[in-house]
Amino acid sequence: MTLDIEAFLATCRKRTNLLLENCLPSNDAEPGLIEAIRYATLGKAKRIRPCLVYAGAALASNSSSPLGTPYTDLTHSNAIDNTACAIELIHTYSLIHDDLPAMDDDDLRRGKATCHIAYDEATAILAGDALQSLAFEQLSLIDDIPPAQVLLLVQHLSQASGMKGMVLGQAMDLGATNKSVDVTYLETMHRHKTADLIAASVVMGALSNGHADERILLSLHDYGMSIGLAFQVRDDILDELGDTETLGKTVGADAARHKNTYTSLLGIERSKTLLDELLKHSLSALDGFGDRATQLRDLAHFMVQRTF
Amino acid sequence: MTLDIEAFLATCRKRTNLLLENCLPSNDAEPGLIEAIRYATLGKAKRIRPCLVYAGAALASNSSSPLGTPYTDLTHSNAIDNTACAIELIHTYSLIHDDLPAMDDDDLRRGKATCHIAYDEATAILAGDALQSLAFEQLSLIDDIPPAQVLLLVQHLSQASGMKGMVLGQAMDLGATNKSVDVTYLETMHRHKTADLIAASVVMGALSNGHADERILLSLHDYGMSIGLAFQVRDDILDELGDTETLGKTVGADAARHKNTYTSLLGIERSKTLLDELLKHSLSALDGFGDRATQLRDLAHFMVQRTF
Repeated sequence: MTLDIEAFLATCRKRTNLLLENCLPSNDAEPGLIEAIRYATLGKAKRIRPCLVYAGAALASNSSSPLGTPYTDLTHSNAIDNTACAIELIHTYSLIHDDLPAMDDDDLRRGKATCHIAYDEATAILAGDALQSLAFEQLSLIDDIPPAQVLLLVQHLSQASGMKGMVLGQAMDLGATNKSVDVTYLETMHRHKTADLIAASVVMGALSNGHADERILLSLHDYGMSIGLAFQVRDDILDELGDTETLGKTVGADAARHKNTYTSLLGIERSKTLLDELLKHSLSALDGFGDRATQLRDLAHFMVQRTF
Repeated sequence: MTLDIEAFLATCRKRTNLLLENCLPSNDAEPGLIEAIRYATLGKAKRIRPCLVYAGAALASNSSSPLGTPYTDLTHSNAIDNTACAIELIHTYSLIHDDLPAMDDDDLRRGKATCHIAYDEATAILAGDALQSLAFEQLSLIDDIPPAQVLLLVQHLSQASGMKGMVLGQAMDLGATNKSVDVTYLETMHRHKTADLIAASVVMGALSNGHADERILLSLHDYGMSIGLAFQVRDDILDELGDTETLGKTVGADAARHKNTYTSLLGIERSKTLLDELLKHSLSALDGFGDRATQLRDLAHFMVQRTF
């Protein structure tokens, strides 16, 4: 990984953390709720999806150095920022709900107790619900691109998150627990559970920077679906090989719950081969974009090489 | 109640049920999820909030008979329809989540088993999550009013549902269970839990029909907050006096859970006086609107007189 991408990731993370902090003001009426929301949202996190938004925005820019000079500067666009923020809010809500006792029943997330452990189940459910509303509110407040373009963002986010996207994936995941499924089922499940929102991040990044060329958006979607699936394959490999401290969540938890994973279905070696193929496919979707896709290419490498 | 308002309610309900049916297609990938969503959303329900959307739209119309002739016809506007549908989807998601074991732990809703009883907790959580996404998707698909106006709808809906609106109210409700609170707390809680979304329904109805006069929207919001609170006071009275079969939910459940209600804090008689005051206030907010507010006035009377 180059120094440039490290700096880009750090800049995106810092900016996302600031944006999240700003959209989560304190609330005196019911302090427990807002505390739980802030607890789950702020703090240490990879912020991969916001990075993908900024990288997608970079590709859509007309200038040769869309994120400013140097590479690590981000343009301060309300549309790009609020899009990055909205995606991370949706992702955080999904983590809170997925960790609930009725779902994956996890007690560790992002290196600390899950929301329902730190607070209680009811508060965790409500915190997730409020984060989803807030994500759409963030989009509705965008005022520096045409409203029709903002509506496209709302449409992409709602479709990627809902019953044909992320929620469908989570339902498929729960439906497959303690059952044997094949690799096709696993792939469909992860395409929805993980890749739909990741692909939406890239596409929405481009849209938030004013880009609406259908052919380009399709390429970005293609890139996002491949790298999103790769991200999940890498997750399964890390879950098999990694350690709890580095990952910030319980290692081997999926195996313990008799969940189907790439490593359990394919073994480590074939999972690694699949990872390479998905990386190659994601990079090929960026063919022809030249330097404008530098961040997206570097992010793809980062996502398949990550150790946390 | 006049025959006209009965017919209006019936027409709104029928149309809302049709719209909901249309936006909930079957899904082969994970049939359980979509079944649970359809189970909770379709079927017998008052559909008060969609009625308020149509009535708000009627007020905003320039024609003297905005919902067509006769009174019972509804204009077939994509914006009004999708707004009515979106509000009901949000309301349904909130019912599913509020009924969960970690929340109010109810087993009866709209005359049948609650979603988590008919299916399971995980599916109920996901069904609620998906319904929230779908609500915003419905708004994003509106194509017959200016996009800037649609964005206002997204903004109103997200703010009324989220951590400063409905979710805050539910958190306050849970925070007050088994505790003594005063009437001021109870009012603030219900303003958020119930009235915020009801007020948003009326305001969004007007917005969806192209109206954006700030002064009128404020009057509609005022009407909605009063009648929304009245709706809750009536709910508490019915919970004290009604019967389970008519209400379609367990009577006396709030008292059994040691929840604070208007009747427990004020007694039946003073609750009825409060109900009258709120009705009067809601009607006074409509002063000057003449015949255009007929449906809203009739709905106000209906909401404080209802027996189910």
